[in-house]
Amino acid sequence: MTTEKIAEFIQSCKVAFLGSVDKDGFPNIKAVYAPRKIDGFTFYFSTNTSSLRVSQWRENEKACVYFYSKGWFSYVGIMLTGKIEVLTDQEIKNEIWRMGDSMFYKGGVTDEDYCVLKFTSLHGRWYKDLKKGDFQVE
Amino acid sequence: MTTEKIAEFIQSCKVAFLGSVDKDGFPNIKAVYAPRKIDGFTFYFSTNTSSLRVSQWRENEKACVYFYSKGWFSYVGIMLTGKIEVLTDQEIKNEIWRMGDSMFYKGGVTDEDYCVLKFTSLHGRWYKDLKKGDFQVE
Repeated sequence: MTTEKIAEFIQSCKVAFLGSVDKDGFPNIKAVYAPRKIDGFTFYFSTNTSSLRVSQWRENEKACVYFYSKGWFSYVGIMLTGKIEVLTDQEIKNEIWRMGDSMFYKGGVTDEDYCVLKFTSLHGRWYKDLKKGDFQVE
Repeated sequence: MTTEKIAEFIQSCKVAFLGSVDKDGFPNIKAVYAPRKIDGFTFYFSTNTSSLRVSQWRENEKACVYFYSKGWFSYVGIMLTGKIEVLTDQEIKNEIWRMGDSMFYKGGVTDEDYCVLKFTSLHGRWYKDLKKGDFQVE
């Protein structure tokens, strides 16, 4: 897959899977909504400041993001490893806020329980059907 | 969710997501077909002996398995953390082999590139819509 095809595929996904490493060294996985903002291979997600994963990434920034789709005949999986920063500044919170979010954050866009995860890719790997390869991220 | 409901949900999933930790300490995620055999919260998957993940679990047995479904109104995610053992003995290879597998393993059920991942759960966590909780695995 070319880097362009990979970026297109990622934009078509409605769900992403985030990986973290817990305090005992076990990998953890969680499904989240698609990134609110995509800047090359940097992704911004909204989440709860009080969540278990936020505390894990504050301790250990190592992370991965996985995008996949499975049809009857074709399977695509894209894995990016990198780091996650937990952002709480109002500017980025305003930027990725969407109207329906007040269902999850009663205090609205300034709710202290609303924060932003910024994932920066270091390395990429793709799988398509029985083929696979690595790709560069910048 | 009760443990019975969780077990039922897992049996209904066609895909699972496996987590590992790579040599540099980054979490890795991969989608795989549903377990071939389920024994309580112990799961058996078939995979390629030569795959990157097999080499990761041989170095570091810490793992997680994630099952999820997302409908229009309901979202369920089940995460189990535990350990993965790579089994190559012929008895278990015979037990979980299915006819179509020769498409992936040209040498058939004795192919050296065909092996079994045995995941043993240590801890469970469920999410359903906006609720979550931990559960015991035995």
